[in-house]
Amino acid sequence: MTERSSRLSRLRRVVPEGRAARALSETRTARPLQARGGRPRRRGAQPKVVALGGGRGLSASLAALRRITGDLTAVVTVADDGGSSGRLRDELGVLPPGDLRKALAALCGDDDWGQTWARVIQHRFHSQGDLHDHAVGNLLIVALWEQLGDHVQALDLVGKLLGAHGRVLPMSAVPLELEAMVKGHDPERPDEVGSVRGQVTVALTPGEVQSVHVVPHDPPAVPEAVAAVLDADWVVLGPGSWFSSVIPHLLVPELLDALTETRARRVLSLNLAPQPGETDGFSPQRHLEVLGRHAPKLALDVVLADEAAVPDRAELTEAAKRFGAAVELAPVARRDGTPRHDTELLAAAYDRIFRMHGRIGPWR
Amino acid sequence: MTERSSRLSRLRRVVPEGRAARALSETRTARPLQARGGRPRRRGAQPKVVALGGGRGLSASLAALRRITGDLTAVVTVADDGGSSGRLRDELGVLPPGDLRKALAALCGDDDWGQTWARVIQHRFHSQGDLHDHAVGNLLIVALWEQLGDHVQALDLVGKLLGAHGRVLPMSAVPLELEAMVKGHDPERPDEVGSVRGQVTVALTPGEVQSVHVVPHDPPAVPEAVAAVLDADWVVLGPGSWFSSVIPHLLVPELLDALTETRARRVLSLNLAPQPGETDGFSPQRHLEVLGRHAPKLALDVVLADEAAVPDRAELTEAAKRFGAAVELAPVARRDGTPRHDTELLAAAYDRIFRMHGRIGPWR
Repeated sequence: MTERSSRLSRLRRVVPEGRAARALSETRTARPLQARGGRPRRRGAQPKVVALGGGRGLSASLAALRRITGDLTAVVTVADDGGSSGRLRDELGVLPPGDLRKALAALCGDDDWGQTWARVIQHRFHSQGDLHDHAVGNLLIVALWEQLGDHVQALDLVGKLLGAHGRVLPMSAVPLELEAMVKGHDPERPDEVGSVRGQVTVALTPGEVQSVHVVPHDPPAVPEAVAAVLDADWVVLGPGSWFSSVIPHLLVPELLDALTETRARRVLSLNLAPQPGETDGFSPQRHLEVLGRHAPKLALDVVLADEAAVPDRAELTEAAKRFGAAVELAPVARRDGTPRHDTELLAAAYDRIFRMHGRIGPWR
Repeated sequence: MTERSSRLSRLRRVVPEGRAARALSETRTARPLQARGGRPRRRGAQPKVVALGGGRGLSASLAALRRITGDLTAVVTVADDGGSSGRLRDELGVLPPGDLRKALAALCGDDDWGQTWARVIQHRFHSQGDLHDHAVGNLLIVALWEQLGDHVQALDLVGKLLGAHGRVLPMSAVPLELEAMVKGHDPERPDEVGSVRGQVTVALTPGEVQSVHVVPHDPPAVPEAVAAVLDADWVVLGPGSWFSSVIPHLLVPELLDALTETRARRVLSLNLAPQPGETDGFSPQRHLEVLGRHAPKLALDVVLADEAAVPDRAELTEAAKRFGAAVELAPVARRDGTPRHDTELLAAAYDRIFRMHGRIGPWR
């Protein structure tokens, strides 16, 4: 048995037990969590989609994807060490909940119930005191973790409470620290490569990030996340902060194995603009190159980019080819000129890709 | 127009507006909030019950009452200044949410969903840091108040989220301070009567509480609480901390007017034992006397007490007569000897009283 297959065989679906598990199985929300059966699947069913990332980029993907599939799972980075999440990590020794909360908010429905609760879990206290800047959803998620003692069960229960249109999972049950090798991390020695630690510090470094790794180096993946990737029809990576939200998933060995071995098609969704600090001056193809450097064996099927964000199509096509991927260009940016994704346009682009490049189809 | 009728005529049902109001009107919980129509009501309908109080005593009443009626409203004191509630009051200038949270927890269903969420909103953080001892339900309630800007709408939404079997209202939208006249507040001068301020301080005073008042002296009642009392079939006062949870409602003029003028029958549920500090050494009839001193015009229909907690039936009967009330003795204490109410026994006692003393019946 290879190291990789042994790692994967260790992973299994965890069956929740007890009262909270029964609470999960009750039919209280409008849309219960999908039963996730195996293949084969009947023609015309919705695609099983897993989106990996963190922060605003993942939220953009989820808001779009929930419009085109009812079977959606988010796998979220757990390396945040800033703000409310960082303080909760320090004070209570828990996973940083912030990116998980944002993903849940993005999955809230468009109805009044969904939008009201999305606003409530995103609500932050403002005061001169202890609670200042804490997001309420973070506190709720952490309370459920402490009460239930199970990350996945707790997040499923919050999702059910909110009527979330999909499932939100942490990529690892261990809080991670991000460490980057940065050229010019010290402005006085611009050619020197040095190590920078902590997601906030990495995101704000004035130097050029060359690579990242996580501490601990071999974190265990959440079994449900691995199972979702293996069982998916489509896996979506990006958009998002490249080094702190997109690449970290590839640094969890079991998750990288699953991404490599899954029969799912893989789409990489590129950013609309380089991010000051992390990817200042990076071309689209450079984004691909650094991703490949962190996961040399990873193949992709489609690279999605906004035409306006691709100065040189030939070079991007060339870089994508090295992953075995086709490039799909589509207008996905907001029309107001901000480098943010338009939900409807992004949904249309994913929908088209799933129809054109999928193994089974049409989905609807 | 008398001062009292003018006060009452100012009060009206507030109709919620906007997104959160629509969220409230969606049919997401198993048991939507009852439509509260006026009289006359068809024979066999459930009694409309309003329970007034705070803390553990109110929770005991609510847990019992929700077993015998589907039309239940809690009107909760807002004078707490201790613990998590006190800190939230100080830091964010909000109503103390703790007693409201406890009432909501008591109204959670017996199914796994209800019991899981009851535990979650009661969950307290334990740390060496800023969040220590904060109850998660308090933070959630306060966040909704800040988001929606409406106490009642926010509490209705939390109730709906939890699938609460009843409505929870604050007695006033203004945080109150409790002030007590205490004989022997200074142990060195046992005969001197002095003023003691703050609910926690009042509850713990070594002296004998003689009377309480609230600051501000003429707090506005929450209109929905007044409307509920006026529209009720039964109003239940107590059990609970006599001076800090039961009597404060009588110090809100509009609420006292409503309690005096309502066509509802009124039952006073006595405590199982005197409370060290507040009512040390108080007999059941003494409890009635001090209540009467704070609301001389208040009439009662029934006084409920546990037989084992009444050393002198004749004296209690005499004291109850001054309110126009009959005494009902029933075993309502837990059989383990602790001075706490047994939910099923208390439910049976209320049920019997509602059947025997109600205007319309039988209810079921």
